[in-house]
Amino acid sequence: MKDTAVLLIDCPDRKGLVARVAGLLYEYGANILHADQHQDHEQGLFFMRVEWSLNGEKSGSGEMPGFDLAGFRKAFAPLAAELAMHWKLSVSTERPRVALFCSQYLHCMADLLHRWRTGELECEIPVIVSNHRAVENLAAFYGVPFEYIENTAAKRAEAEARQLEVLEAKRIDLVVLARYMQVLSPAFVERYPAAIINVHHSFLPAFTGAKPYHAAHARGVKLIGATSHYVTEVLDDGPIIEQDVARISHRDQVEDLVARGRDLERLVLSRAVRWHLSQRILCYSNKTVVFD
Amino acid sequence: MKDTAVLLIDCPDRKGLVARVAGLLYEYGANILHADQHQDHEQGLFFMRVEWSLNGEKSGSGEMPGFDLAGFRKAFAPLAAELAMHWKLSVSTERPRVALFCSQYLHCMADLLHRWRTGELECEIPVIVSNHRAVENLAAFYGVPFEYIENTAAKRAEAEARQLEVLEAKRIDLVVLARYMQVLSPAFVERYPAAIINVHHSFLPAFTGAKPYHAAHARGVKLIGATSHYVTEVLDDGPIIEQDVARISHRDQVEDLVARGRDLERLVLSRAVRWHLSQRILCYSNKTVVFD
Amino acid sequence: MKDTAVLLIDCPDRKGLVARVAGLLYEYGANILHADQHQDHEQGLFFMRVEWSLNGEKSGSGEMPGFDLAGFRKAFAPLAAELAMHWKLSVSTERPRVALFCSQYLHCMADLLHRWRTGELECEIPVIVSNHRAVENLAAFYGVPFEYIENTAAKRAEAEARQLEVLEAKRIDLVVLARYMQVLSPAFVERYPAAIINVHHSFLPAFTGAKPYHAAHARGVKLIGATSHYVTEVLDDGPIIEQDVARISHRDQVEDLVARGRDLERLVLSRAVRWHLSQRILCYSNKTVVFD
Amino acid sequence: MKDTAVLLIDCPDRKGLVARVAGLLYEYGANILHADQHQDHEQGLFFMRVEWSLNGEKSGSGEMPGFDLAGFRKAFAPLAAELAMHWKLSVSTERPRVALFCSQYLHCMADLLHRWRTGELECEIPVIVSNHRAVENLAAFYGVPFEYIENTAAKRAEAEARQLEVLEAKRIDLVVLARYMQVLSPAFVERYPAAIINVHHSFLPAFTGAKPYHAAHARGVKLIGATSHYVTEVLDDGPIIEQDVARISHRDQVEDLVARGRDLERLVLSRAVRWHLSQRILCYSNKTVVFD
Repeated sequence: MKDTAVLLIDCPDRKGLVARVAGLLYEYGANILHADQHQDHEQGLFFMRVEWSLNGEKSGSGEMPGFDLAGFRKAFAPLAAELAMHWKLSVSTERPRVALFCSQYLHCMADLLHRWRTGELECEIPVIVSNHRAVENLAAFYGVPFEYIENTAAKRAEAEARQLEVLEAKRIDLVVLARYMQVLSPAFVERYPAAIINVHHSFLPAFTGAKPYHAAHARGVKLIGATSHYVTEVLDDGPIIEQDVARISHRDQVEDLVARGRDLERLVLSRAVRWHLSQRILCYSNKTVVFD
Repeated sequence: MKDTAVLLIDCPDRKGLVARVAGLLYEYGANILHADQHQDHEQGLFFMRVEWSLNGEKSGSGEMPGFDLAGFRKAFAPLAAELAMHWKLSVSTERPRVALFCSQYLHCMADLLHRWRTGELECEIPVIVSNHRAVENLAAFYGVPFEYIENTAAKRAEAEARQLEVLEAKRIDLVVLARYMQVLSPAFVERYPAAIINVHHSFLPAFTGAKPYHAAHARGVKLIGATSHYVTEVLDDGPIIEQDVARISHRDQVEDLVARGRDLERLVLSRAVRWHLSQRILCYSNKTVVFD
Repeated sequence: MKDTAVLLIDCPDRKGLVARVAGLLYEYGANILHADQHQDHEQGLFFMRVEWSLNGEKSGSGEMPGFDLAGFRKAFAPLAAELAMHWKLSVSTERPRVALFCSQYLHCMADLLHRWRTGELECEIPVIVSNHRAVENLAAFYGVPFEYIENTAAKRAEAEARQLEVLEAKRIDLVVLARYMQVLSPAFVERYPAAIINVHHSFLPAFTGAKPYHAAHARGVKLIGATSHYVTEVLDDGPIIEQDVARISHRDQVEDLVARGRDLERLVLSRAVRWHLSQRILCYSNKTVVFD
Repeated sequence: MKDTAVLLIDCPDRKGLVARVAGLLYEYGANILHADQHQDHEQGLFFMRVEWSLNGEKSGSGEMPGFDLAGFRKAFAPLAAELAMHWKLSVSTERPRVALFCSQYLHCMADLLHRWRTGELECEIPVIVSNHRAVENLAAFYGVPFEYIENTAAKRAEAEARQLEVLEAKRIDLVVLARYMQVLSPAFVERYPAAIINVHHSFLPAFTGAKPYHAAHARGVKLIGATSHYVTEVLDDGPIIEQDVARISHRDQVEDLVARGRDLERLVLSRAVRWHLSQRILCYSNKTVVFD
């Protein structure tokens, strides 16, 4: 596995952006592995993701020195300032630290943990948080510390205070709500902007709120869906990362929808987490750019 | 092509329904080609579709006489009454008469007409109705009489009166709204219960009303959809017949959504019409049973 | 959960089959929950699945006695003989006994075990068999006895003898090959006709044999697939139960195909097992009828 | 509609390619609308598509002069030579000239012509060629000259000579085989490298050759597919452009597969043609890069 760096940029669109970023990387000898751009012409915005190798290359006389990341960062900062860029530079050696939250349903949790164990999700998982004890054995099996934090609408303030304590102690970068059935307060959400991923068991914006499979059954839809999204202050309204659907028929009762939906939930949530961890997602205007 | 009959039944569920219907058909010597049932256990309802051949079979001494449809109908009526059945008996030789409505966008219309010409839709199409002249050449190419009926919100009453006149004169069984952009009045809808099929360019119940592709783009969904449904009094709320979706990305602008959506609209509308014509759809509780 | 019985039938097609089966069930007072039929007109074959309740119903004066299964079986046997039926009568209280086989890749295994634990797969799993020790911890976590049986092409006879011993000792009804990477001998396959389910990581019949993702990458396909099927003597050629596909692009390398393929493999294998366990599958002419 | 230019490049991968191309475009003042790159690390190849506006921009003192295309071309040529690039520079004002070929089945032809009429396919269609007269009326309706050229295996040489005459007289850039049921000779194919698009009615590489729906039915697959690809000397073996699939069941007979397949064929062929016309496709190693 090579060590790589990823630069994510968004800024007002103008001529020469690709030339200037690519030019600076070339100057520093970067061996670009992937580069992708996007422009929102309506809003005049530019987005870019570029990934390059940090390792030196082998030559006749031995290995070349690796990429000078500190130097590049120093040279890039004034360019970014001049062009009014938001930017984020990540390196693959610093694995993001992820907290997994769940309640009593464990299908997404079991799926994420298995993917993590087999190397599909490149991150640390220093803690699992739940308001149920159902996940305790699973956490133990995967060797992840488990924090039981009681939570109800009435106790939310207290529970969130304890949760935030844990997240800070564990230096968490990303919170994943793997069918966590409690609403987060705006204050909590504000602490982790574009860093809390939730899975909602419907094809948003259809069937927001509670019991979406019941609502889908009542409406008689022919496809059910699931959606992974960043959490914002407004319930089920944050930037959508991924969606998928499955065909159903008149034969399917609510419990069949629930069962099929579990497969969709696993897929859309695990994809969202993987894309976030590989620095593929940019948010703007309550939407996402997902570089593939 | 064999001549066939289709019997569609819905009634309160009780023991022995399949046995009694199948028994009577057996008594009359029916050669059953397809039979399908469905039960809604929650609501205690039973649904059945059975299709059989009307032609006599070849034996050593020549062809047997065909199925005695009149006799069967007479024998079935009291059974149906006893069991509180709604039922409909159709024969393939009596092709349903379909009116196609459209406005300025012709992709669904061109698609339906081509499918009809090649035998995929087994019906008569005695008339195309539009509030635009755009469809006139296409109608002429396929040899279908065209009725231009001006329509706007202001003139709706007058326009609908004329439309109903045409539909009656042509003895229409099914009205297909192939991207017809005018709202129908409750009075009009009432005249054709479960006999007006519309295509809506979103994944209902998301994005009802006007400009669904704009709404989908604004919300940042990752899949767009289209829905065919029976028209009821409430806009975009009737029983859903078919839905399909296509994946989009941040690169897709509204006009890309519109273009991709056209393919979805063609597919879900043509499937709905085909299933309706082959007597595969039953409506209840604002939903559909679609026998496959 | 109600106790139910399922009757699966295949036989030469003739008039009155539905009437006679439904009639006999009616006579015995069966409360039919689902009934489905299929006819292969080309081959003149008839297939039927019917499911009914075994519990008595509540009436004014208490609960009625349950369905007389022994009596029905006795009455049905001569009818079945007369009509040259193959048939199978299963009851939900007798849960099938399933052996899971795997090698070093555990994604399907972990998925099946989690589904089993949460009640999605209604069966017993008395044993996990593997030629690797990788699965041992997972088996222990789910409390399933693990049998390590060394296997290679050279040792196949010996290994299979031991495997068959285990399967018999555990009274196994169904063998599931959850990415088991050894070929089974014809003799082994013959012992479990239509009772060994395999998952192949391609869209069969494309890319049979080893390394299908490499082959798919080399051919430049735009969709990859996975297939679950019953195992027959001919490699990757048995009756297909389920298939699914995922879209890929030129950006995807072989390892991306492998990663996406894992999701497809989990889905098609778990569906196949679930359908088999709920008695939904009939095999004929190297194909399957899957009643939904 | 803006006038745009598209530059397609493939070359050996090396550092600085993006920087140098983007740098030159910046120097000439290009307003880049879309840019996309791809690297095949295994084969050490680099691919790029970049699209920019040719129109001048409005400023305070009137419109700026447009992009200096001739100057850019002159400056780019030596750079391309130095970097061993294959490249193609296209402008949207020079619409490609497309010949459509078909035999007796017209669903793809009708679909392509309707899409062309409504502006979805940006090209000229100076001729329709067929070995059947079935398409004649349709060609007339859309105002496209029709050439009837008799063809059979026996007469192929003569037929192809006549076809090539027509293609040259009409200055054809792209040949689209819209269910054209005759095999092309290697000599014919050689004249239009990566410029003949065919649709095959299966999920390649499964079911090459004649009657793929029959083969799919016989094998009992659960999904059918269609594939659009560039034609090469080897039948059904050229670089795949697009594929799609549809779910089928045991209920579907060959004629149902044929009917559903028509929808797939229309979709995959029209997408391939649209992508080719918008200069999104590069071929290498018998595969395609399709920039989205």
